[in-house]
Amino acid sequence: MSQKYVYLFNEGNAGMRNLLGGKGANLAEMTSLGLPVPYGFTVTTEACTRYYEDGKTIAGEIVDQIKEALAVTEEKAGKKFGSTENPFLVSVRSGARASMPGMMDTILNLGLNDETVEALARLTNNPRFAYDSYRRFIQMFSDVVMEIDKEKFSKLLENKKKQNGVELDKDLTAENLKELIGEYKALYKAEMGEEFPQDPMVQLLEAVKAVFRSWDNPRAIVYRRMNDIPASWGTAVNVQSMVFGNMGDDSGTGVAFTRNPATGEKKLFGEFLMNAQGEDVVAGIRTPEHIDSLKQINESVYNQFVEVADTLEKHYRDMQDMEFTIERGKLFMLQTRNGKRTAAAALQVAVDLVEEGMITKEEAVKMIDPKSLDALLHPQFVAEALKAAKPVASGLAASPGAACGKVYFSADDAKAHHEAGEKVILARKETSPEDIEGMTASEGIFTSFGGMTSHAAVVARQLGTCCVSGCKEAFIDEAAKTITFSNGLVLNEGEWMSLDGTTGKVYAEAIKTAPAELSGNFATIMEWADSIRTLKIRTNADSPSQAAMAVKFGAEGIGLCRTEHMFFDEDRIPAVREMIVSKTVEEREKALAKILPMQREDFKGIYKVMQERPVTIRFLDPPLHEFLPTKDEDIAELAKTMGIEFETLRETVAALHESNPMMGHRGCRLSVTYPEIAEMQTRAVIEAAIEVRQETGYNIVPEIMIPLVGEVNELKYVKSYVTATADKVMEERGVVIPYMVGTMIEIPRAALTADEIAKEAEFFSFGTNDLTQMTFGFSRDDAGKFLNDYYAKKIFESDPFARVDQIGVGKLMKMAADLGRQTRHNIKLGICGEHGGDPSSIDFCHRIGLNYVSCSPFRVPIARLAAAQAKLNNN
Amino acid sequence: MSQKYVYLFNEGNAGMRNLLGGKGANLAEMTSLGLPVPYGFTVTTEACTRYYEDGKTIAGEIVDQIKEALAVTEEKAGKKFGSTENPFLVSVRSGARASMPGMMDTILNLGLNDETVEALARLTNNPRFAYDSYRRFIQMFSDVVMEIDKEKFSKLLENKKKQNGVELDKDLTAENLKELIGEYKALYKAEMGEEFPQDPMVQLLEAVKAVFRSWDNPRAIVYRRMNDIPASWGTAVNVQSMVFGNMGDDSGTGVAFTRNPATGEKKLFGEFLMNAQGEDVVAGIRTPEHIDSLKQINESVYNQFVEVADTLEKHYRDMQDMEFTIERGKLFMLQTRNGKRTAAAALQVAVDLVEEGMITKEEAVKMIDPKSLDALLHPQFVAEALKAAKPVASGLAASPGAACGKVYFSADDAKAHHEAGEKVILARKETSPEDIEGMTASEGIFTSFGGMTSHAAVVARQLGTCCVSGCKEAFIDEAAKTITFSNGLVLNEGEWMSLDGTTGKVYAEAIKTAPAELSGNFATIMEWADSIRTLKIRTNADSPSQAAMAVKFGAEGIGLCRTEHMFFDEDRIPAVREMIVSKTVEEREKALAKILPMQREDFKGIYKVMQERPVTIRFLDPPLHEFLPTKDEDIAELAKTMGIEFETLRETVAALHESNPMMGHRGCRLSVTYPEIAEMQTRAVIEAAIEVRQETGYNIVPEIMIPLVGEVNELKYVKSYVTATADKVMEERGVVIPYMVGTMIEIPRAALTADEIAKEAEFFSFGTNDLTQMTFGFSRDDAGKFLNDYYAKKIFESDPFARVDQIGVGKLMKMAADLGRQTRHNIKLGICGEHGGDPSSIDFCHRIGLNYVSCSPFRVPIARLAAAQAKLNNN
Repeated sequence: MSQKYVYLFNEGNAGMRNLLGGKGANLAEMTSLGLPVPYGFTVTTEACTRYYEDGKTIAGEIVDQIKEALAVTEEKAGKKFGSTENPFLVSVRSGARASMPGMMDTILNLGLNDETVEALARLTNNPRFAYDSYRRFIQMFSDVVMEIDKEKFSKLLENKKKQNGVELDKDLTAENLKELIGEYKALYKAEMGEEFPQDPMVQLLEAVKAVFRSWDNPRAIVYRRMNDIPASWGTAVNVQSMVFGNMGDDSGTGVAFTRNPATGEKKLFGEFLMNAQGEDVVAGIRTPEHIDSLKQINESVYNQFVEVADTLEKHYRDMQDMEFTIERGKLFMLQTRNGKRTAAAALQVAVDLVEEGMITKEEAVKMIDPKSLDALLHPQFVAEALKAAKPVASGLAASPGAACGKVYFSADDAKAHHEAGEKVILARKETSPEDIEGMTASEGIFTSFGGMTSHAAVVARQLGTCCVSGCKEAFIDEAAKTITFSNGLVLNEGEWMSLDGTTGKVYAEAIKTAPAELSGNFATIMEWADSIRTLKIRTNADSPSQAAMAVKFGAEGIGLCRTEHMFFDEDRIPAVREMIVSKTVEEREKALAKILPMQREDFKGIYKVMQERPVTIRFLDPPLHEFLPTKDEDIAELAKTMGIEFETLRETVAALHESNPMMGHRGCRLSVTYPEIAEMQTRAVIEAAIEVRQETGYNIVPEIMIPLVGEVNELKYVKSYVTATADKVMEERGVVIPYMVGTMIEIPRAALTADEIAKEAEFFSFGTNDLTQMTFGFSRDDAGKFLNDYYAKKIFESDPFARVDQIGVGKLMKMAADLGRQTRHNIKLGICGEHGGDPSSIDFCHRIGLNYVSCSPFRVPIARLAAAQAKLNNN
Repeated sequence: MSQKYVYLFNEGNAGMRNLLGGKGANLAEMTSLGLPVPYGFTVTTEACTRYYEDGKTIAGEIVDQIKEALAVTEEKAGKKFGSTENPFLVSVRSGARASMPGMMDTILNLGLNDETVEALARLTNNPRFAYDSYRRFIQMFSDVVMEIDKEKFSKLLENKKKQNGVELDKDLTAENLKELIGEYKALYKAEMGEEFPQDPMVQLLEAVKAVFRSWDNPRAIVYRRMNDIPASWGTAVNVQSMVFGNMGDDSGTGVAFTRNPATGEKKLFGEFLMNAQGEDVVAGIRTPEHIDSLKQINESVYNQFVEVADTLEKHYRDMQDMEFTIERGKLFMLQTRNGKRTAAAALQVAVDLVEEGMITKEEAVKMIDPKSLDALLHPQFVAEALKAAKPVASGLAASPGAACGKVYFSADDAKAHHEAGEKVILARKETSPEDIEGMTASEGIFTSFGGMTSHAAVVARQLGTCCVSGCKEAFIDEAAKTITFSNGLVLNEGEWMSLDGTTGKVYAEAIKTAPAELSGNFATIMEWADSIRTLKIRTNADSPSQAAMAVKFGAEGIGLCRTEHMFFDEDRIPAVREMIVSKTVEEREKALAKILPMQREDFKGIYKVMQERPVTIRFLDPPLHEFLPTKDEDIAELAKTMGIEFETLRETVAALHESNPMMGHRGCRLSVTYPEIAEMQTRAVIEAAIEVRQETGYNIVPEIMIPLVGEVNELKYVKSYVTATADKVMEERGVVIPYMVGTMIEIPRAALTADEIAKEAEFFSFGTNDLTQMTFGFSRDDAGKFLNDYYAKKIFESDPFARVDQIGVGKLMKMAADLGRQTRHNIKLGICGEHGGDPSSIDFCHRIGLNYVSCSPFRVPIARLAAAQAKLNNN
């Protein structure tokens, strides 16, 4: 028996989403619930996959099945394709498993041709309606199926209106439209080299192919990549009897949600237009009416709709987003699906549905997209205030949230005015490390240069501060203290501006913001998530303030405290540089001794914030040349400051140069060469822990993490200095405290030999940024140049730096986790790469049995929810 | 029962080499054969390991066992430690599993002190002998055990001779020596802060510890790394009753080989000195006599020795290297071991032993160190001629072999004189790519600058031409056409010079060379090896001449033909650069079309040489910026030549800059972005194969290798262009030929997902250079800076770029081989990284079931032998 590629609506159900797509499955489900659904059928996603396998052709057996299903549908409708008495017309719509923008949406009125249009005119007694329907169909078919530029049709329509001295489409007469049809068909022939297809079956098969094709258009590919949808899923095609909302004043069409999608309020929400087709509602020429008004127009239809809505919500146990049409006083349901909603609404609906007893807490937790929470963690514009505002420019949405303040053009000014009690926005061409204090003082950061990974963007995201970067529509004159926008508007120092870091929009006015809302529904959902998840959530934080923010967001520890950020600090870098140019161990130790008290204070600050939560401190990681200038003039200046010869310093810089710095002298390799560094850092870690314990009574158990280990002997060697130093410090202080020594797993060889490494390491933390780079053999900095080709050519479907590549990198991670536990059954396993904040990666981490994930502070709530979902999805 | 750490000589045998060390095991074996061996015992290698585990102390139980063994030995000898009547004296010698220079060698006369020396004087009736023995012992103990600078003792000795107006040590009287002993002891006390130890047991334990310590001295560590000896093996210590070769004219000492170690001739070979101790033979003050002369001096001892030698050779079934002492007319054997020999001798001995029926062909093949063959593959100086020659300078031994020719100072001169029939040596400060033709024309290459990886060194090794590079003792004046050596000697153009690329020695004279000898014993052994091995041996070759050389050495195919070397060629680089700066596909195709005919000719040349042997051609691999200059002035010049704007070219160069070029836009990533490159290369490969088939009738089956694949879709994508182009070419030419498409496995992810990749790849070739870099996460260029620390600190024991890291990189290789075969059971597997020529790596490749290894031409014979040994060692 050959495979079934086509399902009638009464043959399917909601559970067949993978095969029928979301739309098709729900149409089938509504049909089986006995709701008023125009009859039709679905061509399956497998037919789409087959279409690609067959070199973009529809196999004969699929065509046969479509014809059979059509015949059944025609019989149900009592109409026939191409009939000049009672012609059958259909809509054709795509429907993938997950709703996917960028794909072909809808073709209406398919089945019309030069003859059936006349029958439609007769049957409806409304020639204008019939010709308008035909005209729209030709236009839609030409644009969507045949990819003829739709502007060409619009132009003909505009000309027609001009010729006849009318302004609106609806003022064109049946005769005008008939002429227009002739012109449309001529245009079609000129473009395609053949007549507009008159055979409805040809129209139908072309439309089906167009849907299949649209699965692979560039926008769809980008969307799939962003949303982790594999190309192999394919899309289904729904073919459905046409019903007309534009058959007169007793007809209409609309969309509605069972609850308010912006707030979650439990109240029917939607709008409709009488005597209109779907596209009119969207076109915005007429203003649609609120769904409640339908009651006045046709109370029985209204009541029927309210009942249907209620049935659907109870049936699907989630807020529904529905499309309906009223044809001559009769209600038809064209679609239902779980409604998209704002993050706030999502929380409200989930909490309400639990309270209404419709779903469990577990189901509520599964219902919310973790990534959507991001919007709630930052200040937002007050909706009413935003409505009245007008953006003047837009840049890159570099760091989310909304900000409003007075603009200043230097870090010092921003800081000063912040200290004077103003809310400030810092505007710079681009920021640099010296601007850090001004950035910290600002509500938002605005730059005209630099991309998503510019200094401003990276620091802003780390600070959780709103940032719009690389705004090309703004000219920032830092000397004159003005921003000139490309529309001519000039903003002076101290004037109000507002930034939306979530959309990239820029406003030259004050817009009221509301702070992040971490209580209420948010807190409820988080509490439920915490009660479910088994993965612990830690944060990556290098300072007490970051740590404090993360704790507020629910972090249960620090998974990665990078010590080099402390080395870059302006106060310390002279000592760091002194250490680098040292020629002897003694000189180096002298320089390190200057850094020690500062580093100890850093750790004390962090311990105090984290109290008894675990803190993993990673020892110095970057290559030493990062601390030195590279240009001759900078070297000369530094040499002068340091009181050493220019040539000496230049030689040091030259000697530190590396062909491939990522694969150079860094990580534990530094401590192998200069164990003094590990000794100083150990001393700082242990002394700080002892002092904090003495000052506060907290039992601090520091976790010392050695980076970039690839061979157990590296760890063994560095660890020998760590333990010797720790023992010495404890003896000096007369206090014994517990501490752990572990390693990053970020080198492929570390994963491959994790059984050996676990003999020395008490914990592993997967550094998936480097692990991804080395496993793929490309550096993130350089891969940017070719990865776009990889996406365009479907070589990669998702960004391996955003989501753990489970089949490659993940295989190494699983191997390392298993080997590590084999040697040390209770080894603590975590991840501290950026993947630690990505839901699909968190799911993977849960499955391979990690103990915790660590992510940036603002990702902590996302990770808490994702970890709960991982637990629920893998039980 | 406690562990046994000490074995008497009659408790061991030759099979206990791991425990007793080579020397100890052989002493035990000789004892059990009933040969005259002074009695003694061996402290095991496990005692050495234990010594390090116990923090460099000898455990009490080991001391006890030493004392017990000593007691037994004393009883056998009828003497006693410290006895003033019949004092027992011993020698203490190290003995690891493998003989190892750099370790402590020997302490003689241990047991002497102020009292026993008198007893010895009485017993031998030779006070001078006794005091001299004691004097030597103090000196040796102080130097070797206590590490007191031995120069200080020499100075005292010299003074003593001066004081007494004598020239030779032997002219010092007993009284003089007695005084000297007093001075030596005073020096010892001044240096050590304590008296010279009088207790023989203290002397013994200190000496044992010194042997153990010497296992870990820097020279020993370097040697172990070079020879793949793990630190964990440890060394044994042999304690043996002293016998004296210096007790008078009826005493003597000597060394001998059962065959000639230089030629392999089957004739006793060795020398001896009467009335001497071992060190006198080495010191070279008296000239030793040939072993045959012993017959005249003491025929019965001579005959006994000949019989012992014969017994030992038959017993060990290999040429023996023996040490003996004659004490008052009695023969004692002090050591036997398989004798070290030259490569030529090794072949001769192996072939002879097979002919003598002593060993099998398989044993003969196992007997020869594959690496030693290298010396036979290059011309060598004729031994007699070399004896008469005097080096004038020495540089780096950059490429092995010997060369003799007239010196010229430019590539053009070298080429011209070569063409005129002269043998020439090219001398340059350093060479550059333009010198290539001159280098090819020369017998040898000499530079005053540049190291082992300089252009001259790298190219010379590839050409198989002798090279001495970086000779700091020579000033080369290219304009004046002279070399001035630091000894003042000046060499002018056209004068003779000779180079030894194996030792780095430089001669300002003609020395006769003999060509490489690939027939005779060499051919016999190779034939035996070929009949045993299952691994095929291919070569890495980029040109017909390299390929021809490799075939001569027995290569069975090309495993790696790098196409980029052809791109760098002077004729082609303009077209390559034109391709790089192209802005459109059309421009790029136009530039590629210029390269096509040249590339096609390259392949035709190689196919013709290789006939029907397989040829694997790797598509373009390096990042494109390697083909462009980086300095502004060079860019400006090139821009002018290319007729484009300086700024345009500079932008192209800047855009191609990469932070980590090794992990950048290269390998198959280039073809993903620019499929035109793969198309052109495919066309060249297939057209060349068709044309060669038409011209010669050879069935050429090209193997197209796509580099740097990390994801199957990359290979799939590039392969789609390869197959489409190949189909097109075959259609154009009206000929169908078979060809294969495969991939390098050089990215960790490729190994991890090899099951997927094997769906598209018909063969894998392990690129272990890159695979090692990425698995370890360090680049070879940068790692040089810290790897020495890694060796010094015993983090790495061997160089992962020289030997496959079996536990890390090897794990990936095995995984890839297994996964690949799982998908495609007959997938062809090979290796083309530099490890392909390393015997231990070849053994590993055999074990994981590769089909072939590919190495540079000069390594082919080594690989053939190593592959046979791998087969024999893993049966």
